Amino acid sequence: MNKTLTEKLISKSLVEGEMIRGQRIGVKAHQTLSHDLNGVMSYLVLEALEIDRVKTEVSVHYTDHNMIQADFKNSDDHEFEYGMTSKIGVYASNKGSGICHQLHLEHWGIPGKTLIGGDSHTVAAGGIGMFSIGVGGFDGAMTMAGEPFYFKMPEIINVKLTGKLNPFVSAKNIILEVLRRISTKGGVGKVLEYSGPGVKTLNVAERSTITNMGQETGATTSVFPSDENTKKWMKAYKREKDWVPLSADEGAVYDGVIEIDLSELEPLIALPSQPDKVVPVKEVAGRKIDQVMMGSCTNTSLHDLLSIANILDGRHTNKDVDAGLYPSTRTVIRESIARGAYDKIIASGVRVFEPVCGGCNGCGFAPKTNGVSLRTTPRNFKGRSGTATDQVYLVAPETAAASAVTGVITDPRDFKISDYNYEMPEEFIFDSNLFISPSDNPDEVVITKGPNIRPLPEVQPLSDNVSGEILLKLDDNITTDHICPAGALYLPIRSNIPEMSKHAFKVVDENFAERANKSDGGILVAGVNYGQGSSREQAAILPRYLGVKTVIAKDFARLHLANMVNWGLLPLTFINDEDYENLDQEDLLSIDATELVEGKKYTVFNKSKNIKFEVTSPLCQKDLAAVKAGGTINVVKNKLKAEKIDNFK
Amino acid sequence: MNKTLTEKLISKSLVEGEMIRGQRIGVKAHQTLSHDLNGVMSYLVLEALEIDRVKTEVSVHYTDHNMIQADFKNSDDHEFEYGMTSKIGVYASNKGSGICHQLHLEHWGIPGKTLIGGDSHTVAAGGIGMFSIGVGGFDGAMTMAGEPFYFKMPEIINVKLTGKLNPFVSAKNIILEVLRRISTKGGVGKVLEYSGPGVKTLNVAERSTITNMGQETGATTSVFPSDENTKKWMKAYKREKDWVPLSADEGAVYDGVIEIDLSELEPLIALPSQPDKVVPVKEVAGRKIDQVMMGSCTNTSLHDLLSIANILDGRHTNKDVDAGLYPSTRTVIRESIARGAYDKIIASGVRVFEPVCGGCNGCGFAPKTNGVSLRTTPRNFKGRSGTATDQVYLVAPETAAASAVTGVITDPRDFKISDYNYEMPEEFIFDSNLFISPSDNPDEVVITKGPNIRPLPEVQPLSDNVSGEILLKLDDNITTDHICPAGALYLPIRSNIPEMSKHAFKVVDENFAERANKSDGGILVAGVNYGQGSSREQAAILPRYLGVKTVIAKDFARLHLANMVNWGLLPLTFINDEDYENLDQEDLLSIDATELVEGKKYTVFNKSKNIKFEVTSPLCQKDLAAVKAGGTINVVKNKLKAEKIDNFK
Repeated sequence: MNKTLTEKLISKSLVEGEMIRGQRIGVKAHQTLSHDLNGVMSYLVLEALEIDRVKTEVSVHYTDHNMIQADFKNSDDHEFEYGMTSKIGVYASNKGSGICHQLHLEHWGIPGKTLIGGDSHTVAAGGIGMFSIGVGGFDGAMTMAGEPFYFKMPEIINVKLTGKLNPFVSAKNIILEVLRRISTKGGVGKVLEYSGPGVKTLNVAERSTITNMGQETGATTSVFPSDENTKKWMKAYKREKDWVPLSADEGAVYDGVIEIDLSELEPLIALPSQPDKVVPVKEVAGRKIDQVMMGSCTNTSLHDLLSIANILDGRHTNKDVDAGLYPSTRTVIRESIARGAYDKIIASGVRVFEPVCGGCNGCGFAPKTNGVSLRTTPRNFKGRSGTATDQVYLVAPETAAASAVTGVITDPRDFKISDYNYEMPEEFIFDSNLFISPSDNPDEVVITKGPNIRPLPEVQPLSDNVSGEILLKLDDNITTDHICPAGALYLPIRSNIPEMSKHAFKVVDENFAERANKSDGGILVAGVNYGQGSSREQAAILPRYLGVKTVIAKDFARLHLANMVNWGLLPLTFINDEDYENLDQEDLLSIDATELVEGKKYTVFNKSKNIKFEVTSPLCQKDLAAVKAGGTINVVKNKLKAEKIDNFK
Repeated sequence: MNKTLTEKLISKSLVEGEMIRGQRIGVKAHQTLSHDLNGVMSYLVLEALEIDRVKTEVSVHYTDHNMIQADFKNSDDHEFEYGMTSKIGVYASNKGSGICHQLHLEHWGIPGKTLIGGDSHTVAAGGIGMFSIGVGGFDGAMTMAGEPFYFKMPEIINVKLTGKLNPFVSAKNIILEVLRRISTKGGVGKVLEYSGPGVKTLNVAERSTITNMGQETGATTSVFPSDENTKKWMKAYKREKDWVPLSADEGAVYDGVIEIDLSELEPLIALPSQPDKVVPVKEVAGRKIDQVMMGSCTNTSLHDLLSIANILDGRHTNKDVDAGLYPSTRTVIRESIARGAYDKIIASGVRVFEPVCGGCNGCGFAPKTNGVSLRTTPRNFKGRSGTATDQVYLVAPETAAASAVTGVITDPRDFKISDYNYEMPEEFIFDSNLFISPSDNPDEVVITKGPNIRPLPEVQPLSDNVSGEILLKLDDNITTDHICPAGALYLPIRSNIPEMSKHAFKVVDENFAERANKSDGGILVAGVNYGQGSSREQAAILPRYLGVKTVIAKDFARLHLANMVNWGLLPLTFINDEDYENLDQEDLLSIDATELVEGKKYTVFNKSKNIKFEVTSPLCQKDLAAVKAGGTINVVKNKLKAEKIDNFK
């Protein structure tokens, strides 16, 4: 049968299930990626499971997210992670080496391999022909431990590229065009597979800009073929031997097609505050801006930096614009220094930071109140910049640089300067100091845990009778930000569950944590789409830690459901949504959960009002069993314990 | 009479009093300097006083301290300050131009002029032959408004330099030697005036390293002659026309002499956690380190960067060391890029940040718990790094760079590499984009105040009967950190008095603010040295804002006394220190303060215990009058109001 590239890739790591659309399949990661923000949780899990050595071909850890170091917490996290990675066989980037996704492309990515990473933008690796998926810290740990990662076999959409980009219309505009067409929900349950004659006009850096931000469509992942351009890229990093050619078979069958003629694209811009509110730049040109942020994992290849420098050359940033750049990697910095580009950028007045995620994940460079910020980052969700009233627009580097000079949103084609001709170096500057190899003597590695690093909470198996008062009655669309607040203040304590739990639901109810602590277990009630937003598993752990055993909602966000299963929090949905109306905070509920069965209806008794209503759980039997056991973490613990006993026999 | 250089400088700006040691004198600032942390308070004061235009030759504002921008607060502060400076005639540095003290030397400093700056390290300007003093935000505002700055005519100590520094023994070691000899109290009430044949062996950058850190001796200021080296420096920045030669007269009379033979110095190091705990590096060589921080206003001239690059060239930083560099100015960055030094530093693994104060004032780059950090900064007070358990050593750049490579404290002379020969450029790269000129149409400038910027509190005149309960009974040595907490969490709200007041005395008593708010005015009781530490005036404002009218202590720190006067908080001292023992929290006290007279004894009636005791105030008559009026701010307000009425007549 003629296979899509996606099917070829999945088949290389498939260990459970069949590649039938919608069926649950399990893949084993050849490679994993973790970083310092989500990594604390991953390595606490691996430690709790007493994993001696990762069971992948290559696992790499990156220190690039929590880099402000306002006090001991970030540095203590790094210390713990450097210890754990060294001990269990994970390569670790030195601080200052760069942003994980770009570094992984440069130094580790191999076409055909499957990469599972504890960060949603892990999917950038699709630019080099990898099958790559972003997950939370727990699932990241599981894949490092050699467990399969499970998901539904996605539909495969063919994105056919024809033509060639015009000057000042760079790769970012391709993914903005995809988002304009299919929206932030258009990729859910799908893989975006790129093909067509336009592909060969794009280098690996450009392709990874597209696959990276493909995440914002909700797609499982995106993938490009591995071709001569891929080979050239790998050769420039002295990794030619790992290259293999990969593409879809002629006549492969897709579930849908999107056709894009690159030559017809113009500079695009996503308006505040969704990545799919895309219009041509010229439609909003002239709007005054306060800030420009260049960089992030999406847009700081050498290609991007040289393009920015070309526009800023000999010009000054506007005096009313706060302009900053986060370069991607040390190699990119050094190449741009060698080409005079770095000096041009600094001379123009742009603030150049160290190569980290920085402002993109709310760690610094927040705009002023109501500030209009143009960013080359992948996301512009309200408040993600660190400023709740922000107005963030997403653009390509060329639009960002031109607008930084003029002080208003500017189509870079109006700048009347010559485009430059990017030629990727035959060989990138070689840097032997980017990564630390794991220890040859793991037993001698001492693991240091600062006072902010606390052991994982122990979750008890679910009791047969789930009862308690309704601690909170919540509205529709409760996000992970509501449950587990974000921002520079909370990121450093995110993995310290006892401390972080004090702030659970703070946005909704200042006294929630106190009340939950006092009550002997409790229940949450919510409307539709409970748990939407980020992949942070703390949104499941915090309520569970505070004694909450179940959340009864109209429905749940997909990623959050997975986290509830991992941490033993039972999701229930109303059979009749009207029953939501009859519930009030402080009502005492009781549910018989002796037997959890897929599809079963459970009767909830409201003792306070002496009424009954019915609920069910959206989980499959396997996941229900995990919840009953106190979460997947307990299931895996028990499995590993049994294996050790078996080995001993 | 043969004059010292200091006397010549003071005489150029003296407007009140005579230059007799110990007598109160007033000088008028030719130039002022403010920055974004303390500047908010300064510009709020100037706004409250309705000052239309600064009354100096040049006033410059720098944006370099509060640069993390974790949310809207820092950016809102910057916006407010850019507006105010533009409106009232102050030049403002663009973000990213660099650190105030180095920028001021490069672009504004003029030998012979008096500079008053809202930052303690303003004294760096003594390196170019200026008379420079650091003050708090309120006094900074007063000098911008043309008011004299008052202080006691200091003693003048001659620091005679002979010989020449040996390779790898740079200027930082000279000031470490001064600190070793005279301690952190040895400079109090004194000016350190440098002379001797060793002076001409030092360029302006080296001299300013010495004058900058002279602050740590407690000296009023430090000063170097203006000579051919000064002329060369100014010429390299295209400012030769502002140069004048300046030095002490032959036979000038000093109050003391310190002789230092530069050729006998070796690399020195200040141990945790005081800048005067100085020993030779070789005494502690071999101790394991966790972090190296290069940069800060003290040590990041081009000279320093080239020296660091010379040591790091072709080497890697140790894998267990977190090494970072804050360069001083954009000019220094660009010169070091042009010389290949920047690339060498980055290639070695050093994290290079934007040119700001950063880790030096606790805004980022904090070490881990119990972390050993080697820093080229001027101060190593416990916890200043952001980590309460830090162990910070102060060193010269060469020691820092060598230790970053080895991972242990290292004498750079043991490195067996060649010294390099620094030749200052004939002309530094010219950058026209460092500063924003004030508006030509001040009436059109709109002042924007974000929600974190609150008006100055109105202080009422002191009531005739000062009475209330003892809200807190405090021990000896209460610091400004106890009163007004520091750290990245509180710096952004330091000038928001209503918000910041909630955290007053938090370290001592979590509920202080709440209690003070409930009580109708109150009294604080303390031991010796109340208010020691930084110049932050909020340590006086917060208690006053919460209703405290007087502090009865055994004695007060000098700088804090000045702040109490500015903000109308009455300082009283026990006539008999034993009376301290008879007081308890919640005792009700009453004092007749109808007439405040210098030297007068006041009887305090303890209503709760029905006992009496006597106190007095350490203030002079003028300052007592200010306190009675509700602080100097009210005195100035009234004066300006009277002048306006006079002008109108």
